[in-house]
This record gives sequence, structure tokens and C-alpha cells, in this order.
Amino acid sequence: MSSSSSSSASETEIFQYIDLHQNVFVKNLEEWVAVESDSVQTDLRKEVIRMMALAADRLRALGAAVNSVNLGSHQLPDGQNLPLPPVILAELGKDPQNPTLCFYGHVDVQPAKKDDGWKTDPYTLTEINGNLYGRGATDNKGPVLAWINAVETFRALKLAMPVNFKFVIEGMEEAGSLGLEKLLEEEKQCFFADVDYIVISDNLWLSNSKPALTYGTRGNACFFVEVKDTGCGDKDLHSGTFGGIIHEPMMDLIALLDSLVDPTGHIRIPGIYDSVAALTEEERKLYESIEFDLEEHKNNSGVKKFLYDTKEEILLHLWRYPSLSIHGIEGAFHEPGTKTVIPAKVIGKFSIRQVPHMDLSVVKRQVVEYLEDVFSKRNSPNKLKVSMPLGAEPWVADINDPLYIAARRAVKTVFREDPDFIRDGSTIPIARMFQTIMQKSVIMLPIGAADDGEHSQNEKISRYNYIEGTKVFAAFFLEISKLHGQLQETSNTKTDN
Amino acid sequence: MSSSSSSSASETEIFQYIDLHQNVFVKNLEEWVAVESDSVQTDLRKEVIRMMALAADRLRALGAAVNSVNLGSHQLPDGQNLPLPPVILAELGKDPQNPTLCFYGHVDVQPAKKDDGWKTDPYTLTEINGNLYGRGATDNKGPVLAWINAVETFRALKLAMPVNFKFVIEGMEEAGSLGLEKLLEEEKQCFFADVDYIVISDNLWLSNSKPALTYGTRGNACFFVEVKDTGCGDKDLHSGTFGGIIHEPMMDLIALLDSLVDPTGHIRIPGIYDSVAALTEEERKLYESIEFDLEEHKNNSGVKKFLYDTKEEILLHLWRYPSLSIHGIEGAFHEPGTKTVIPAKVIGKFSIRQVPHMDLSVVKRQVVEYLEDVFSKRNSPNKLKVSMPLGAEPWVADINDPLYIAARRAVKTVFREDPDFIRDGSTIPIARMFQTIMQKSVIMLPIGAADDGEHSQNEKISRYNYIEGTKVFAAFFLEISKLHGQLQETSNTKTDN
Repeated sequence: MSSSSSSSASETEIFQYIDLHQNVFVKNLEEWVAVESDSVQTDLRKEVIRMMALAADRLRALGAAVNSVNLGSHQLPDGQNLPLPPVILAELGKDPQNPTLCFYGHVDVQPAKKDDGWKTDPYTLTEINGNLYGRGATDNKGPVLAWINAVETFRALKLAMPVNFKFVIEGMEEAGSLGLEKLLEEEKQCFFADVDYIVISDNLWLSNSKPALTYGTRGNACFFVEVKDTGCGDKDLHSGTFGGIIHEPMMDLIALLDSLVDPTGHIRIPGIYDSVAALTEEERKLYESIEFDLEEHKNNSGVKKFLYDTKEEILLHLWRYPSLSIHGIEGAFHEPGTKTVIPAKVIGKFSIRQVPHMDLSVVKRQVVEYLEDVFSKRNSPNKLKVSMPLGAEPWVADINDPLYIAARRAVKTVFREDPDFIRDGSTIPIARMFQTIMQKSVIMLPIGAADDGEHSQNEKISRYNYIEGTKVFAAFFLEISKLHGQLQETSNTKTDN
Repeated sequence: MSSSSSSSASETEIFQYIDLHQNVFVKNLEEWVAVESDSVQTDLRKEVIRMMALAADRLRALGAAVNSVNLGSHQLPDGQNLPLPPVILAELGKDPQNPTLCFYGHVDVQPAKKDDGWKTDPYTLTEINGNLYGRGATDNKGPVLAWINAVETFRALKLAMPVNFKFVIEGMEEAGSLGLEKLLEEEKQCFFADVDYIVISDNLWLSNSKPALTYGTRGNACFFVEVKDTGCGDKDLHSGTFGGIIHEPMMDLIALLDSLVDPTGHIRIPGIYDSVAALTEEERKLYESIEFDLEEHKNNSGVKKFLYDTKEEILLHLWRYPSLSIHGIEGAFHEPGTKTVIPAKVIGKFSIRQVPHMDLSVVKRQVVEYLEDVFSKRNSPNKLKVSMPLGAEPWVADINDPLYIAARRAVKTVFREDPDFIRDGSTIPIARMFQTIMQKSVIMLPIGAADDGEHSQNEKISRYNYIEGTKVFAAFFLEISKLHGQLQETSNTKTDN
């Protein structure tokens, strides 16, 4: 696709360069995909480290100053110590007139084997019908390279850089980003001191064809509900010898879990909805235009019927209302077949995907008080313990922030349509982490399509998305620079007055 | 203990012989315990087969005609074929004036290793403070030998045999009695044709010190409740991507399981108690005298509080009322830690210990109809399937049958007190199997004490119980012979008239 007629001269030149060099860019992706930088399987750690070195070389070739920060090692469950891959902190440009964009990405991947059901070798980038198949193609090697390609284009065309760049590239994202948060905290006042905006391109559009900007994710509060018998809870009993004469811990647990949600999906915990942000008219309007094919979603997921019938209701309940899911029970019989056991200690696992402005500590109190109340009404002699072993906050951004305005303009320029403003029902801690630590605005700016299959077999990015995504990033540099300049002027004017 | 003053001359002689030869009897048990005839661990099968040969030799030494019936082999899950140990069918005496007693026992054992927490080597019978420790001491080598010792005593003293004997000795009891039922069916009109009474001594007293006769066991109806999502139920979903917009199968299953029993232990399934035999005054009286130490039971089980406070209520609910226990859930997350999964297909497992005169097919219909009704009220689009993969009938005997009268008299003679008439809350298919196939009365006549620890570490039988148990069997031969003779006379008189 050529650039729109309203593009400035340099924009046209940039887009032409990207179109002309697309085979080089695809070749670069092929080289990166060829590295089995699987951070999950520990025997492949050296490949992750080799991948980090390749990424560092690539950034040096751009002219960036690269620091590969050694994070030491971590201990595996078997006691073995394994080196962590370094985190790359790189910077390019220090013009005080320019805004500084910090880009986060990762070059490690999920495990993949041909035998898992791949039609092509997962580590050989293979183009079929315009799609580039390979592990990491969309998550996240493709988008990282697209960003680098965009910077490279400015350099190749000897254009003035409209922004300063910082890069944070890690190799442990698929294994929990070990050590990253600590590093961000440590470097907050140093490497990150002059960052103005943070961009993450590590998720997907909602649709197969319509671009999107992501401005929120739900949180995740995980709960354990432990019920153990009046003994020590360490000795399962036989249902022949004790069935009918004891208060079974499983019965109590099942009743507690059954009290959480009604059949319409409404959470029964008193007060749980009190702090949920009210839906504004502006926000509701965002949902109307969103491209979301319900039938396609049903086909992809295999789910034939949802709790709601309209696109709007489904997205609202997925993104901006809390949900509660029951995951399972630890300590009970879980194998095929039959076993006449009365488990002595059982732990129910459920989680609440909480949303702004629910407070984690309030949610925890509400859950504990409610379950203790339900339990007390059963007059059971068993012992109840409710805990929240994990609590991740939700994240939401202001879509009127310059980051979003600039990204929307860039998308419009390249794809000739406005992006959907979407959220993610899942928890993506990285956005919240950057926002909390840096106190700067964050955007999630995906370039991959909904059907890219991140983490699945036959992961891909289309050549179209990869190349147009590169153009979006380049256009975005120009837009954010422009907006930032205007903001600075306004700000300076204000200060002068 | 000497025999009571009312014993006949031969009874006194018999008991004296048993007391005098007790060390020989203990030595015999030591030889049997030394064989690791573990039928559960397949690599020890040859030891089971060796044990069967020893038992056959022992019976031949008594003068019995022994037939070791080859049952062929069975296939293991890995495809390997393993020979089954033979079942011994032996007989001794064919006097048409005598009743024929069929004794069932087994000489295979549960696995045991010193490392499991045994204080002594499990395969070296070790006497400490009057207890004989060793695997199989009480389950079931000790009782089988006690029966043989009793027969041997009549032979050694050259006394006329008061009864004819048949023996069924197997080596696969701990592994599910493979092939036994088929053999019983096949031999029903042949080997078993002239059997009058069946005696099983493969359980324990309820108390550590008071003898008991067992006249009933509960049944076991196992249920699977499968709920799967509107897709194929083969693809778990992510709680971030689907939490809040779908009817989770786990929610439906939890609600179904929660509908089964109220907090007081009462089963909520309509009609489930309709066929439970009414409690007669005679039956209630049996419970009053039973020796059952609630505190001891609490200590042994670790359970500090039961649903009922009195001995009578507890035993009634354990033995002659149905109970429902929830065992667990297959298909949900069951490991330690957290996982954000929405399981696509879950199978709840519960069982009902049913009692006379509940009919298995009626119970199944009641359960299915009730759960389908509860499910329909949830308006869930998920799919429900309720099945009963296992259904074992309860067993109850008439305690006024000659078998029980004779056994009570024998116990009274040896232990100078009446036995407790007890049931078992568990399911012991063997009693029901013999009763159904042979259509003859069956007694479970235990000689081991409640604290013998069958299947546990440090299994034992006390020297006292082993030797007095031998006397009980010998006295029982005389009593059943006497009673049977009287019955024959009554019956002949009736026929003559």
C-alpha cells in the first residue's frame, strides 16, 4: 500500500524505502526466527543468550549505544543454577528538542516442535499465501524488527531522527521476565530518567484485518480456599469407613465455590462491583465501531454460546467488568477412574479478573469476609483458610494522551482507517509495570492480526502486517515528535505567561 | 484362656491341644509371612504362586483333596501377559450326615517395605508384647491358618470330623480377585453343589478387645458427572480471554455437586431414602451393647468431630443408612500453584454407599433425574452427562440364621462374652458374591482386633487373637454340626408328617 496523498514528502520517501526493502526486512526476520531462543526449556538457554547477542549486534549496526546488562543466574527447582540472558538497554539519539521513546520487546519464544502439529519447520521462516510462518514471527521478533526497520529507514535515508530512542529488549518474557522489574527500578533515575513515552508492541489486534490500539488490561487476583478436616488434614479417609458420619471438607469447599457466582455470571460477593469505573458515554461509543466478529470468535474458541448476545455486551464484560473463574481443586481425587477417598485437605483455586478502580486489598477483604460468612452458616467443624497468593493490578491508559493521538494518526495514514481502541481481558503485567515505575504514559501498539496464533502451532505474521507495521512505527515517530513539539510550545507559552 | 465349664469333654481336649501347640501354630504363620506374596506388584507374582503351592501342601497334609485351578493369565496395561496364581479348591470329608462348611480366604498380601515405616521387617514375623507383627499376619494368612489349625486339631486328636470342609483359597484378593467370580459360577453345580454354609474371616472386630460377628456391608454406587462446554470440550480456555463471557463448565459442575448433600449430611436427592429398611426395635437393641470407643475412633482417624454425638447414631449412619461422598474432579487444575485455566470438560466424582433395600437401578435413575433437573434450572448451554460406572450391591445376613447362632455360641464359649453384631460401612464384594451365586447363607467371622492395621505399616495379629481364634473356629465346627443336626431332624419330622 502506498502512503496517503496527505503524507509529507519525507513520509512518502520513507514508505517507498520500506516497500522497496521489504525482502531484506523479511530476510532479517528469517535470521532471527532461525534461533531457537526458547526461554521455557532450560536446555535451550544458550540459544536465548545467542539471540540476545544477535539483537545487540543489530542495534549496534543502527548506531545505538548498547549495554547488555548481566542479571546473573537463577535457581531451578532441581537446585541447578542457570545463567539468565542479559537485558539489552540501548539508546540512540540524545537531542533535547526531541521526545524520547522507550520501546520494549522480547526476543525469546515459546517452545515449538514440528511434531506439535506445525505444518512447516517452526524455526524456518516460511512464506505461504502472504503469511510468514515461524515461532516468534508475531510474538515478538517480528514487531521488534519492525521497530528496528523503521529506525533503520530514517538512518538509511539520512533523515533527521524525529525522536530519541531507548530500547529494552529482554530474553525471559515467556518465562516470567525474571529480573526485569528489579532492573527497571534500579535504572529508573539513570537509563530511564529522560524517557517521555513507552511503547510496547507485544499483543495482537482484535480482528484479522482492522488495526487496533490497546489501552487497558484487566488485573488478576488469585485466591486459594483451603478447607481441612478437624484432624491435621494430612490423612485422607475412606468413604466406607467415614462416609455419612463426618463433615467432609470437599462438601464445605464445593458449597463455598458454589456461592461465588450466579448462573448468569454475576459475582455474588457483596460490594465487589462498587468500585468498578462507571461506563461513560464516550467509552460506550468506542465499542460501537469495534470490529469484532462474534461468529469468527466462536469458531476460533469452539464456544458456541456466550453469556451475552451482542458484541458490545461481550466486550464490556471481557474488558471492563470483573469476572470470576474457578480453575480447580488441589488435594482431591483428579485422575481417571474411581477412588473411594474422602480428601482431608482440599484447596479450591479461583481468580477474579479485576478492573479499574477496584482496589486489590479491598477485593481481598471482600472475598475473605464473604467466604467466612458463608462458611460460618454451615456450622462445619472444619478449618477454613482463604488467601490471595497472587494479585496483579489492572492497567488502563488515557486514550486522549499524545501517545494514542499520534498512534491513531500513524495508523490512519498507513491503513487509511481509524484503529479500534481495545482492551485485553487478560493481565499483561509489563504495561502496568512500566507505567507504575516510570510514571510515564504507555501504549500497547500491536501490528499482528488476531489470527496470528501466538503461543500456538503455526504462529505467523503476514508480510502485509510486518511491512505496514514498519510503516506505522515510522509514521508514529513523526507524529509523536510533532505533537510533543506542540505540547512543549504550549507548555513553554504557559510557563512564560 | 481355658474352656468354660459347660464345654463338652472333647471341647476341653481340643482347647488344651490348641494351647499346647500354639508355638507350632505361630511357627506356621511365621513360614507363611516369610513369603512376599504381594499380588499388587507384578514383579512379585512368582512369590504369590509359591505361596499358593505352600497353602496347597498344607491342605494336603490335612488330608484334603486339593485342586489348584489354573486361571490362565491376565494382561497388564503395558500389554504384558502375567500368569494368574491358581485358586485352590480343596475338600475334606464327605459324610452325608454332616453339614458342609465352605471357608474362603486369601494368602496374597498388600505391598510392604521396611522403608514404609515398619518398625520390624514386614516379612519376618516378630513377636513384641504379645503381638505378632508381619505383613499378612491378620489379612489374611493368620485367619486362614487358624481355620486350618482348628481342622488339624481334630485330626491330631483323632476326633470324628463334625463337618465336611471345602476350601476356596485365592492369591489375588488384594488385586481385585481376578477370575474368582467366574470360577464360582462355573463350579456352582459341581464343587460347590453340596455346600451348606459359607464362612469368611477376612475382616476385623470393631473393638480392640471385644469379639464381633459381621452381618452386613454397604454397597457402593459410583457416579461421574461430566459437564463440557458448548464446543467439543477438548480445548481449555484462558480466563483472561473468556472469563466473564461464557458459562464455565466448572461453575455448573460445582453447583450440581453442591446440590447433593445439605450441611447436616442429609442427601438431598428426592426419594433416595424411600427404600431404606426401617429400623426395627430388635435391630436398635443390637447397637446398645456394641463396644465402640468414640474417643479411640477419633484418635485413630484424626477426626475430632463427627456429624453425630452418640455411638448409636454414628454406627447407624455408618452401617445402615446411605451416605454420599464427593471424591474429586477430573479435568480441572489440580496441581499446586496457580493456573488461569477455564477447563473445557470436567468430571465430578461422587459415590453413594447404599444399603438394603435400595435398588441400584432406582438409585441411578433418582440421581440422574435430580441432577438433570438442577442443571436445567441453570439455563446453561453446556452439556451434562451423568453415569454410574460402578455399582456394588450391599450385603446383609439374617442374624438368626444357624451360622450366626453357632458362631455366637462358639465365641461365648471361648471369650466368655457375647460377640457384637456389627456391619461394615465399606463394601466387601466377596460376601455378597458368595451369597448371590451359592444362594446359601454367609457369615463374616473375624478373629483380628480393630487395631490390627490391615493394609497399614506394622500390621499384626495378637498371639491371643490368633490362638483363641483357632479355638473359636473349632468350637464353631461343633456348634454348627449340632444345630445342623437339629435342623435336619426338624426338617425330616416335617417331611414325615
